[in-house]
Amino acid sequence: MTEFRAPLDDILFTLNHVADAGKLDDYDAELSGEVASHFAAFAEGEIAPLNLIGDQQGARLENGRVRMPDGYIECYRAFVEAGWPSLTAPEEFGGQGMDALTLAITSEIYSGANHSLQMVTGLVPGAIRTLINFGTDEQKARHMPLLADGTYLVTMALTEPAAGSDLSAVRCRAEQDGDVWKITGEKIFISGGDQDMSDKILHLVLARTSPEGIKGLSLFLVTSEKTDGTRNDVTVTRIEEKMGLHASPTCQLAFDGAEAELIGGLGNGLKAMFTMMNHARLDVALQGVAHSSRAYDIARTYAETRKQGRQADGSPAMLTDHADVTRMLREIDAAGLGGRALAHMAFVALESGENPDLVDFLTPVAKVACTEAATHAASTAMQVLGGYGYLQEYHAEQTWRDARICAIYEGANGIHARVLATRLLPAAAGKAFDAFLEQELAETAALAPVVGSWREARDVILSQSDASPLAHDFMQLTAQTVQACLWHRMLKVADNHPDPARIKATAEYALSQIAAFAPAYAGLVRAA
Amino acid sequence: MTEFRAPLDDILFTLNHVADAGKLDDYDAELSGEVASHFAAFAEGEIAPLNLIGDQQGARLENGRVRMPDGYIECYRAFVEAGWPSLTAPEEFGGQGMDALTLAITSEIYSGANHSLQMVTGLVPGAIRTLINFGTDEQKARHMPLLADGTYLVTMALTEPAAGSDLSAVRCRAEQDGDVWKITGEKIFISGGDQDMSDKILHLVLARTSPEGIKGLSLFLVTSEKTDGTRNDVTVTRIEEKMGLHASPTCQLAFDGAEAELIGGLGNGLKAMFTMMNHARLDVALQGVAHSSRAYDIARTYAETRKQGRQADGSPAMLTDHADVTRMLREIDAAGLGGRALAHMAFVALESGENPDLVDFLTPVAKVACTEAATHAASTAMQVLGGYGYLQEYHAEQTWRDARICAIYEGANGIHARVLATRLLPAAAGKAFDAFLEQELAETAALAPVVGSWREARDVILSQSDASPLAHDFMQLTAQTVQACLWHRMLKVADNHPDPARIKATAEYALSQIAAFAPAYAGLVRAA
Repeated sequence: MTEFRAPLDDILFTLNHVADAGKLDDYDAELSGEVASHFAAFAEGEIAPLNLIGDQQGARLENGRVRMPDGYIECYRAFVEAGWPSLTAPEEFGGQGMDALTLAITSEIYSGANHSLQMVTGLVPGAIRTLINFGTDEQKARHMPLLADGTYLVTMALTEPAAGSDLSAVRCRAEQDGDVWKITGEKIFISGGDQDMSDKILHLVLARTSPEGIKGLSLFLVTSEKTDGTRNDVTVTRIEEKMGLHASPTCQLAFDGAEAELIGGLGNGLKAMFTMMNHARLDVALQGVAHSSRAYDIARTYAETRKQGRQADGSPAMLTDHADVTRMLREIDAAGLGGRALAHMAFVALESGENPDLVDFLTPVAKVACTEAATHAASTAMQVLGGYGYLQEYHAEQTWRDARICAIYEGANGIHARVLATRLLPAAAGKAFDAFLEQELAETAALAPVVGSWREARDVILSQSDASPLAHDFMQLTAQTVQACLWHRMLKVADNHPDPARIKATAEYALSQIAAFAPAYAGLVRAA
Repeated sequence: MTEFRAPLDDILFTLNHVADAGKLDDYDAELSGEVASHFAAFAEGEIAPLNLIGDQQGARLENGRVRMPDGYIECYRAFVEAGWPSLTAPEEFGGQGMDALTLAITSEIYSGANHSLQMVTGLVPGAIRTLINFGTDEQKARHMPLLADGTYLVTMALTEPAAGSDLSAVRCRAEQDGDVWKITGEKIFISGGDQDMSDKILHLVLARTSPEGIKGLSLFLVTSEKTDGTRNDVTVTRIEEKMGLHASPTCQLAFDGAEAELIGGLGNGLKAMFTMMNHARLDVALQGVAHSSRAYDIARTYAETRKQGRQADGSPAMLTDHADVTRMLREIDAAGLGGRALAHMAFVALESGENPDLVDFLTPVAKVACTEAATHAASTAMQVLGGYGYLQEYHAEQTWRDARICAIYEGANGIHARVLATRLLPAAAGKAFDAFLEQELAETAALAPVVGSWREARDVILSQSDASPLAHDFMQLTAQTVQACLWHRMLKVADNHPDPARIKATAEYALSQIAAFAPAYAGLVRAA
């Protein structure tokens, strides 16, 4: 098995030289690079070695409580001792006050090392952001220190049986009982709904405070212990048997009059959730990138050391001497590098706050493109390894199994595609993306064909009374168009990467693929 | 979970009306249909129910012997009692003497019901064929009855550590010791290398009888018991932990001077194997088809019964009311229907013996196209199910895990693509395929663009000194071209299917995809 190595050079390359993170006030490239290399060392040394055992043992439900696999408690303790939970917490509450991009760097590395564990600890920054945006001073003072010092781990409890992607169907209800709220109902698919690593758990729960659809939803904080110190009425009723992410307990939770506190005001539940959504979606995009990158590392390392067949001159060949293997490695590498550039650009746009319309447009594109690329990259890595790719010990197959969820959760990819075509494109977001393309085109004339294809397809989409049947093809075309822009950027700044030849060769490969396939998707849209 | 249903209507449609099996002397459509429906009932009632438990328990290595999961021994006993092992054995040896196409029907159904178990029992017909082609009368008389009555199950022992796809590197050696041969060496990835269902095991072993590369290889029969009744010197040294096919024990076998008998003559090992190869590859193509078909059944059944969101008029919608779900279902359905038509056409061509060059060309195309389609179809089925697709109980994920091996084994797909572009296309096989296209074109003028694209790409491939860097794209283009022919055939005969509307709609969908993507692959080849 190839040990996990954090792709630090690749990360800093796109963040600093392609996505231009330096333009953000609170991003300090040098400091971020230092933090990142500390985290990389921790991830490589402490987190990644638990990935395989977590996959094999899985989280278990015993006597109503979730037990994490061997070593996870100790790893979390070390994570807390090193101060990682406090990374983005404000300094006044004991945090380090680091910026969202530094968090994005560590999140990607974390996911590549151990996606399951990242799921269980990864919502702390989202809770911190929610408190900053919607909490009262009193709520901040009470909860923030417990987030920063690792006492809390956090869950996000939205989904319900038979509600799935449709939040208006949420039935979990909150009722006021004197001074406190009581929540009753069932939530499913709650990652880290219980575990035995943190002292306490903070659940962010979406519940109904009035019967009227989406406007009747409010957001609540529910802690695993009541204010009187006794255990709150939240029970794990089952954990799911999944294809992957075995060390991430996916819980069904029963709230049985659980004590809760409102955050963000009555009826503001979706608003409060949605401010987390763009971050959450880009986080998932980076999970995809992490798997693509890991897939590349596994496949390349194997191919470089595996003898297979003979050269033309009769001498023994390595797998990398075979043209189709080289092609597969390029494809896998492009998935990670191209996806990361897209996610980083979207993250920088989000943090800059300058162009929220563009962020709205880029976010679903990044989510879809990076997560589809990840499953494809992991599957291709299995193919590079041949029969060994199908064996558990080489880890390519776990990469695929863990990566596969990314296209499903945080909004199934088909829903993002529909939203892009039917809601975002006809609105300000669509115009913002067009303006972005115009700018890229001004700098890179070679983009003309793909931008032209995109605009033709855009006009077709806008002319439809219901564009949803074309949403998939339009999403694919859009992803290829924006990635064409980014590959040209990468070509221009390749010398800032320690291995410019790799960047250039991969960019040429990716651009030739886009030149072939963007017209195909555009043609499918036009044929409608 | 959706219970397994054998796709009998679909199978008989392509075999009888698209691939024209009726032109074969020994194929009797009515009799085959009857046999198929008997087998379908057995597969649905007895084999399929063991698929999930097999996945969960897996085969286990205990005290040097392999134990199959619960119920497998009983199921094999019922399989034997119903006479299925004897399906293709000659009547003079107690067999039913059925033809290869009837076997192909039952094999596909078997793989859809339980790919793992099919792996373990599925090599009996191959051994029967090997005996017929290469066995002496004495060998036939001794072994054939034991194959027909289920006493033997069969393994194919080719691969060795570090040899992988390169059989010239085989080191396992056979030495003559008086009257008998003794085999010494190690084989890996041997499906069903041991099990506790059959009384005896017959290993077909490729071993070295002289040092000179591929010509030094001979084929041997090695039985689990020696002629004196004691256990032969074949030991299972490990079974692999795999991503899927958990109930199919993938064994590492140590031959330690194991008693063996030569079959097919000294140095004829590869020749003897290769006569099995076209069948084996088409069998794998059908395994892919089986998974695509199963994926469709799971996804369609779920989507038709799952409420999700609302219609335009506000009434509750089903998943099937969403355009992107409809698109995904079409895509999955096309993978199975289109792949099956291709595999059936190749099978009929193989059995007819009329055009072996065309068979050589179609076989790798069918293998690659059907196996890639299968993993794609299973992954798309998971996407249709959303979060439930990621759960074990809905079976979409097992379908993916089991299907994934098909693109790897029986020649990794990249190797088939290379052989197509570099060896088959420049030879008689390439001309045979071109003549086939000419014929299809004469019947269906609408094929002109795709055939034109293919021919342009073919000319580029033939002009290269080494076409292997283009092999992948050319394989994709070739698969799309032949499938375009088959979809047009299906359009024409759709009324022979119980649900013509489904065939027509899927054909239109598939042809529009091909119209978009074939030029993309042709463009990639031309750009070289």
